[in-house]
Order: sequence, then structure tokens, then C-alpha cells
Amino acid sequence: MRAEILAIGTELLLGQIVDTNSAWIAEQLAASGIDCLFQTRVGDNVERIVEALETALGRCEAVVTCGGLGPTQDDVTREAIAAVMGVALRRDPALLAGIEAIFAARGREMAASNARQADLPDGATPIPQRRGTAPGLICPVGDKVVYALPGVPDELHEMLKRAVLPDLRRRAGEQAVILSRTLRTWGISESRLAELVEPRIEALDAAGPGAPTIAFLASGIEGIKLRITVKAAGSDDARAQLDEEEGRLRDLLGEAVFGVGDETMERAVGEALLRRGRTLALAESFTGGLIASRIVALPGASRWFRGALVAYATPVKHELLALSDGPVVSAEAAAAMAEGVRRLLRADVGLATTGVAGPDPQEGLPPGTAYAGVAVGAAPAEGLALRLSGSRERIRQIGSISALDALRRRLLAGA
Amino acid sequence: MRAEILAIGTELLLGQIVDTNSAWIAEQLAASGIDCLFQTRVGDNVERIVEALETALGRCEAVVTCGGLGPTQDDVTREAIAAVMGVALRRDPALLAGIEAIFAARGREMAASNARQADLPDGATPIPQRRGTAPGLICPVGDKVVYALPGVPDELHEMLKRAVLPDLRRRAGEQAVILSRTLRTWGISESRLAELVEPRIEALDAAGPGAPTIAFLASGIEGIKLRITVKAAGSDDARAQLDEEEGRLRDLLGEAVFGVGDETMERAVGEALLRRGRTLALAESFTGGLIASRIVALPGASRWFRGALVAYATPVKHELLALSDGPVVSAEAAAAMAEGVRRLLRADVGLATTGVAGPDPQEGLPPGTAYAGVAVGAAPAEGLALRLSGSRERIRQIGSISALDALRRRLLAGA
Repeated sequence: MRAEILAIGTELLLGQIVDTNSAWIAEQLAASGIDCLFQTRVGDNVERIVEALETALGRCEAVVTCGGLGPTQDDVTREAIAAVMGVALRRDPALLAGIEAIFAARGREMAASNARQADLPDGATPIPQRRGTAPGLICPVGDKVVYALPGVPDELHEMLKRAVLPDLRRRAGEQAVILSRTLRTWGISESRLAELVEPRIEALDAAGPGAPTIAFLASGIEGIKLRITVKAAGSDDARAQLDEEEGRLRDLLGEAVFGVGDETMERAVGEALLRRGRTLALAESFTGGLIASRIVALPGASRWFRGALVAYATPVKHELLALSDGPVVSAEAAAAMAEGVRRLLRADVGLATTGVAGPDPQEGLPPGTAYAGVAVGAAPAEGLALRLSGSRERIRQIGSISALDALRRRLLAGA
Repeated sequence: MRAEILAIGTELLLGQIVDTNSAWIAEQLAASGIDCLFQTRVGDNVERIVEALETALGRCEAVVTCGGLGPTQDDVTREAIAAVMGVALRRDPALLAGIEAIFAARGREMAASNARQADLPDGATPIPQRRGTAPGLICPVGDKVVYALPGVPDELHEMLKRAVLPDLRRRAGEQAVILSRTLRTWGISESRLAELVEPRIEALDAAGPGAPTIAFLASGIEGIKLRITVKAAGSDDARAQLDEEEGRLRDLLGEAVFGVGDETMERAVGEALLRRGRTLALAESFTGGLIASRIVALPGASRWFRGALVAYATPVKHELLALSDGPVVSAEAAAAMAEGVRRLLRADVGLATTGVAGPDPQEGLPPGTAYAGVAVGAAPAEGLALRLSGSRERIRQIGSISALDALRRRLLAGA
């Protein structure tokens, strides 16, 4: 089974936005055992979308499009697919009622143009929306198929997983179950990780086709991921294989593995705190609320998170955290901030960050100089140097995760 | 003159890396007045690269490829272009000497495979490297042309600007400049925006080809953007047209326009505060540090940002913000938090958020119920209801920008 991806939007052709959707879709297709040999981007132009769809359908069995399903005149994906199918658009009353209900629920008036989102090529099946207003489409073209998804990543992700991948697998007649699981690591370089895992990869390669595979996924700021993929006759067998492989990798990598799948570092920290019945307070300087916002993104964080002081201006550190005079970017200051904030917010555990995010130096220190402070239990608070580099944004992001990791390791060490 | 972009690399098809090169090249082509109607991605496979090149050359006059010029077996762009040209590869002695010299200068031994990088399709002109080892290629195909560039962004950027754009402009025999500018809006639905702008779009359409164009870009949570694109004989003329069109759109949209290009809402707030010489403190509940982290991402925020209290646990609101007993999700509580935090952090202006991010209700209120509190000057602090819906993440993100927008509008109103 071969599929192609067609990203639609003039802003892509002008380079005004980077097409991240195609990479995400490609990853999902690969993990489902579906080959993707070409990806194309085209503007909001019926004729050229038709041309791109026809070229793609001449080479493969299924095309996944993203974008061009909005309510404005620009959004012509529906028209183009109808032309390729050789059918007319018809307005679907049930879809229209659904869109009207969404607007009513939000207490907003629906503009007439939104009704266009209820138009379907004759013979297409809608994929109901769960997050926005534009439904997706499953459009048969002879014995082939075009899936049309919205360009908004959230909506796209949910629809692809819920409706497109199952339909593709069914069409592929795929009996085997392909499952994958991702282990997330922090604090080990990619080359060191490769060294540690290489013997296992070689053993699996030697076991021949049908054996699990292991792939490295560098995922920007969120650490390095290891993806295990297995193919088996049934789900139970597939899961058992995943469990076994996960166990082997954890033996090789130890504490560097902080989560599985979409488990974040802050979730690992939250679980460690909950198990110990402890609450957390943060004092953030150069991370500026990033750690707090990651934590608050977790439903249920209120069980263990008290709050944070973003002590951005230096006087705030002195006044509210009782930081003594002297440099504010130091291991000692980080430790004192952690101690100060757990007192201020009456939490069991304090975590603090202080550092230079750049672009300019501070206190004579170059961007990237940064410390985490950790105050746990009765022991004196500790300050740890973090190793950071890159842009202001990267320093803040990596600094946030590094500080959380410092706390996670401290909690695991039984502090 | 029409050009296409072909990004080459199996890792793109597997979604392991996001193709940022194509967007960058597209932006450069657009700025040079060269239309780009299709972009394609293909794996490291001679046959399919040939197919993609032939498809592209059937539709346009020039193709820019990136990737697949490295020294390994995977790198087959040279072979594919030679096949499309119908010629053989020959090893260029001058290029080979250049590559050997680079290795010698770095004190490294050159692997035999690196010699492949000195191979040229017969009739192609090399683009000498200035940063890496792989030269680029200018490859005539009849009266059309294929430019092959390395996939390393640094090397690609330098070669495109130095060799490809000048050659393309010369071939195009025209000096038209295409410029675009994006206006960012908040607080108006896409459909309402379309209604307001429609008369202007129709007038421009009626003015025929060569007139500016206006397009809507939905950009997820960051509001709706309007992109103006103009084509003119020179940069000055193009900029004047952009200025005029921007003025007309601002007249139609008023305060809904908060920025241009990559100007964020927090930057608009920061500028309004700086102009008034005021400092800001935040009290964040359901937004949980998101507003602070957006602000701290701005270099220079320390001139106007004091800090934030993320008052996540309810007792923290009472203890540190002197919030009186009663519901914490209300307009009154938001106003009191804004007043409390500007006192606590000794700032001129206070901004607060309180609300239900979900998934569970709080105080009997459904997710999406939320308020911003704004304390400016001597007037009593105000609490404003925000209209939010969707996932927890979406509620927090949209809530953050909506709260900043409430403050921006209040400052613009001269409070």
C-alpha cells in the first residue's frame, strides 16, 4: 500500500509557514507500514490541486491532503477533490446543523461562509469534527481514495488517528498488527545512546525480518526518543513483544528513560511527587514561567502543584525570596531561591531556576550559564549547574526540562 | 518565470525531520519575483527523483533541488540529474583537488567516497562550495535548468543567494519584485473578518492581474493573519503599495490589528507599556505561567516586566494576593488578583487570569469559563469575561492571548 501526502496552502509556497503537518503524517504512515514515496505542496488553486491529485493518484493508492477546508474563498480543496471525482458538491444538512450547533454553543453568530464547510463531494463520507468546525472527508476515486484533513495540527492529528489510519489499514488488507512504543530519554547524547543501544539493534537485525526494530528519533528540544516497532499476528502478542523490548532498553539506559509515548518530564516529576505525597513550588527566573506552564498543562496538577513565582526583575528575587545580596546567577542563589519559594508558597519541595538566557551577558556571564536549585526534605537545598547553549528560546526550553530532570533524579535518589 | 522546489531525502518521507529548506527557498524565490506553484519531496531513490524532476520540468522552467549531494551511497541526486539530462557523470579534477584541499586543511584523511562529490553530469557547471565539501550544480536541461544544492541549511542559503538567484533572475529577464506583509488580528472570527475585507478583495480582483492580493492565513492559536502580496518593478514601489494596502485594511479592521509580520501580542503590550513608562506584574491561575513565559521570550522584557505569581492552588490566591473568601473564578476575583499582584510585585499595572481550563468543572462552572483582571492607573481594577472553548491546552493558550489583548485594548483606550 502506497500513499502520498499533499499539503495545500499558498502560504506554504511562499515560505511563510513551514509545513510540519507532512512530516507528522509521514511518521504516522510509516509506523502503520504504509509506504510514502512522494509529498507535494501546492497553493490554494483548484486547477493546480487537481493536477497534483491526479499526478499522485497515478502513482499510489491513497492521498492524504491537509489544508484548504476553511470557510473562506481561498479554501478550495473540496472543489478540487469533487473535480477529480467528477462529481458535484452537495450541502450536507447534518453537517450544517453540527456547525451551527458549534457556533451556538460558543454564543457566536455563524457567518454565511461557514456553511461552505458542510459541502461534500457527492459520494464522499465526512469525518466528523471533534475540535474545530471543518469536517474531514473520505473521498473514493475509483478503487483509490483521497482523505482531506484540516490544516490545523490539533484537528488533523485527531482525525488521522481516528478515521484515516484505520481506513487505510483496512484497505491495505493488513492483517498483521503493527504497534510501536517510544521511550523518552534525557541527559544522554545521541552518540552515547547509539553506543549503548547498538548491540541490541545488531541482535535484532541478525534475527531477520519480522523481528522488532529500534529507531532513534531526535525530537528537537524534548530529548531523544527511541521507537520500538513490532509486527505480530495479534495485539496481545505485539504488546508482549513491546514490553520485552522496553525492558531490555531500560536495562541498558537506566534513569535516562523518563517516560513512554507522550509522557512528559513534568508528568514524571508529578508522579514522583504524588507517590511521596509532596507538593511543589517553583521560583523561575530565566525560564520565566515555562516550567509552571508545562506543569499546569497536566490535568490534575493541582494535587501536587502549589504555584510559582516568576521572579524576573532582580529586586523581586530579593524582596519575595529573601535572597541575600550578591550575584543572582549562581548555584548558591538557585539553592536559596528554591528554599525561599517553598517557604513563600508553603510547599514541601522547591525548584528554582536562575541563568542567562541571552542574547546579552548578565553579571559578566555568557548566555547559557544557568543553575537549578532543588530543596527537598530536611537536607540543605542544592544548586546544580545546567549545561545550556543556543538561542534564547532554546536555552529557556532546555533549561526548563533540565531543571525538572534534576528534581526527578533527586526524587528517584530517595531524597 | 516559474520554478519548483524538490527536497530529496528518505528521512523527509519518514517524517523524521521537518523540511524547513523548502519554505526558506520558497520565500527567496517569491521575493525575487519567481512563481513557485509546486513543491515536492522524494526519497533517496534515483528512479523516483528522475520521475519527480521530469514531472516538475513538465510544468515549469526551473527546478531547485536540495539534498542528496553527500558522499554516501544514499546520495544519488547527481545520478538522477544526469539521467534526466541524458548524459554521463564525469569526475572534475579541479573539484576533486578542492575537496582534497578541504580535508587537508582540516587535518583529516579523505575517505574514497568523498571523491564522488567531484562528479558532475556532463554539461553541468559547478557552484563552488564555501562552507562544506559538496559543490552545487547548475544543470541545463534543454532550455530549462535544474539547480542542485546541498541539504545543509547554511550551505544551501549561501549558494542560493550567491549563484542560483542571480542566474534565475538573468534567465527570467525581468526584475519584478514580489513583496508581502502580514497583518495580525485578534478578537474577530475568520468569517467576520472575511465579510469586512471582502469589498476590498473584490475591488482588487476587479483591478485585474498585477493588483495586490489579499489572503487569509489561519495560524492556529495565534489569531488570524491577513497577507498582502504585491508585485512591482522595484522595491520602493512595492513597499509603497504595501503601505497603502495596509492602511486600507487597518481602516476596515481598527484595533483588531495588533501587529505586523512576526510581532506578537505580548510585544504589542510591551510597546504600549514602554511608551507609557509603566511596569507589569501578572497573577496567573488557569494560564499557569503561559503569559509570563511568552513575555520572557522577548529580549528586553526586563525593561517593563517585573514578574508573575502563578497562583495555582486556591490558598495561594488568598494568602499572597489577599483575595477575600468566595469563588475564585469570577470577574471580581480576577480584578482583585490584578490589584493584589501589582501590590505584591510593586508594578504599575496588574494583569490577572482565573478560569476553568478543564477537563473537569470547577466551582460548578464548565471548562472555558474564564476572566481577565486588569488594574491600570488609579481607576478600580476591572474583571472581564473571556470566551474560551476547546481542549485544556487550547483554553489556556487562547486565554493567555485574550488576557493580553484585554490589557492592550485598555492601554490603547488611554487608561
